[in-house]
Amino acid sequence: MENEDFDGMILTQVNNIKYLSNYSPTSFAVCIIKEDPLILTSPMDKELANKTSSIKVEEFKSFSEIEKIFKKGGLKKIAIESSLATGIYKKIQGSWDLEIKDFLETERMIKSSDEINNMNKALAISHKSFKKLNIREKWEKSATEWEVAYELGYLMRENGASEESFETIVATGANSSLPHAKCENKKLETPILMDWGCKFKGYCSDTSRTIVHSEKQEEIFDIVLEAQTKAIDSIKPGIKVCEIDKIARSIITEYGYGDNFIHSTGHSLGLDIHEKPNVSKKDETILEKNMVITIEPGIYLEDTFGVRIEDMVKIGHKGEIMGNLPYKI
Amino acid sequence: MENEDFDGMILTQVNNIKYLSNYSPTSFAVCIIKEDPLILTSPMDKELANKTSSIKVEEFKSFSEIEKIFKKGGLKKIAIESSLATGIYKKIQGSWDLEIKDFLETERMIKSSDEINNMNKALAISHKSFKKLNIREKWEKSATEWEVAYELGYLMRENGASEESFETIVATGANSSLPHAKCENKKLETPILMDWGCKFKGYCSDTSRTIVHSEKQEEIFDIVLEAQTKAIDSIKPGIKVCEIDKIARSIITEYGYGDNFIHSTGHSLGLDIHEKPNVSKKDETILEKNMVITIEPGIYLEDTFGVRIEDMVKIGHKGEIMGNLPYKI
Repeated sequence: MENEDFDGMILTQVNNIKYLSNYSPTSFAVCIIKEDPLILTSPMDKELANKTSSIKVEEFKSFSEIEKIFKKGGLKKIAIESSLATGIYKKIQGSWDLEIKDFLETERMIKSSDEINNMNKALAISHKSFKKLNIREKWEKSATEWEVAYELGYLMRENGASEESFETIVATGANSSLPHAKCENKKLETPILMDWGCKFKGYCSDTSRTIVHSEKQEEIFDIVLEAQTKAIDSIKPGIKVCEIDKIARSIITEYGYGDNFIHSTGHSLGLDIHEKPNVSKKDETILEKNMVITIEPGIYLEDTFGVRIEDMVKIGHKGEIMGNLPYKI
Repeated sequence: MENEDFDGMILTQVNNIKYLSNYSPTSFAVCIIKEDPLILTSPMDKELANKTSSIKVEEFKSFSEIEKIFKKGGLKKIAIESSLATGIYKKIQGSWDLEIKDFLETERMIKSSDEINNMNKALAISHKSFKKLNIREKWEKSATEWEVAYELGYLMRENGASEESFETIVATGANSSLPHAKCENKKLETPILMDWGCKFKGYCSDTSRTIVHSEKQEEIFDIVLEAQTKAIDSIKPGIKVCEIDKIARSIITEYGYGDNFIHSTGHSLGLDIHEKPNVSKKDETILEKNMVITIEPGIYLEDTFGVRIEDMVKIGHKGEIMGNLPYKI
């Protein structure tokens, strides 16, 4: 921050505040970075913040107070997050420059060993729980999509997770052609596409598996797995994430399904389930050691079915798959 | 919009897009309101959007395309949401005025009879499920906070909800002094503060009850219930929401607990769990017929316990409590 002549920063994104202070706001809060950093929060969160924050906490009263703090601190060039709501951006304008600089998002790309340990733990819990669930048995017993999602959520919590990383996807039969399908009240069909994860000490895991049954489903599965394997094999420090996307996409395209790979190849994750960089066509971020990304190619045949396979990969000397959950369930 | 000389609007808030089009984006999407409205969305959501949207849908490629659309349409004064990310706001600037005007949030304050029916249905499901849960029995059997939350979530889904409105709060013993406590892996203690809701056709319910045990807990409970009852009794079209907040707050203050009522008295809800207006000190919105708000005063004694009682209220000739869940459980 200092290198670029900023003398202050204002943060509202919950996990940016948690990353810096360990306090995870449950309502609106703002963190002002200056010589003497300060968090302003709702009275509702005062007890929680006092117990968890490493940064001084006061009550948020109004945006004009933030202006007073800028003035008092003599701040001239203040960084804001690109996610800051425009309504707030307009309210805190004054005789200082507000410039978008996602310093925290950039810093959060490289994980510490503690962060990686927490993600490994979250992943281990989510895989153990998935095995315990026994999805093949659930299918034989005609369970419904949402029953499976609830049971998996319960098992992850029972095994030590604090919560799910996101709403578990159990998309079966034709539903699996929607990458972000919502669980329905219907019996499992094939293929069974599951995408799930949990949090440990705030850090996310994220995995997808697809249980296939017919010959056509097997054929698509093999293509997706080849794309995933080769994308992971290409990972090393120094490579741009768009190049990894290109490798996965070119394999799927060779088999004639390029138009059916309708999302990016992966994303980084940590405290948030989606962090920078995005492993997409357009993202030119260069991989560095101790980044953690997912690689999750998929093929989606409208109204028919979809297959997605996703693993978390830690960047070491090369791409190291985290966990060892079998692909064929 | 036309009355105020706007000739276009840009929406990114998921439930604003759902409200207008019936399509609920699962990834980034933008809706451009002009003579010929248009939604731009991810290829990932194309199938879902084509099946559900009443507004024409195309693929989102880049922000420069949005600028082209503004130019082509000859748009001069374009409304934006106050929640729009500043990063996007900066990207779509050009030879037009972008002005914050939360038209949709204002329109969504007044509910149609269909919307109210959906909220009544969500509420009925959530109350039926709460009764089935039998929280007193759970306490006698030493269930844990998160087991109760999971079972209630399961019951609501079983009874016809599509999902929870928010993460169920089961905050017991000292945890109940945190208004937004996270469920822990610990056995239920008293008081048991629960705050839960579910969605039906996208519309939220929201209820809180506190099961009290000791004499001190009963005393606090009675004060909160008196504040809630008198606040609800004061509701009628034409009154400002801040006046309702004042009534609840003054009762709690009279009993000496003003500093322990650490949040606003309530909020509107609908597709989102928190909508405008906020029933707070500062909000001067005037109540109108067919608004729906919650009234949820609470008293929180740090490190000791908290009590909150919450009901949904529809504005008719007066405030009509929705549902009829007993206060004493």
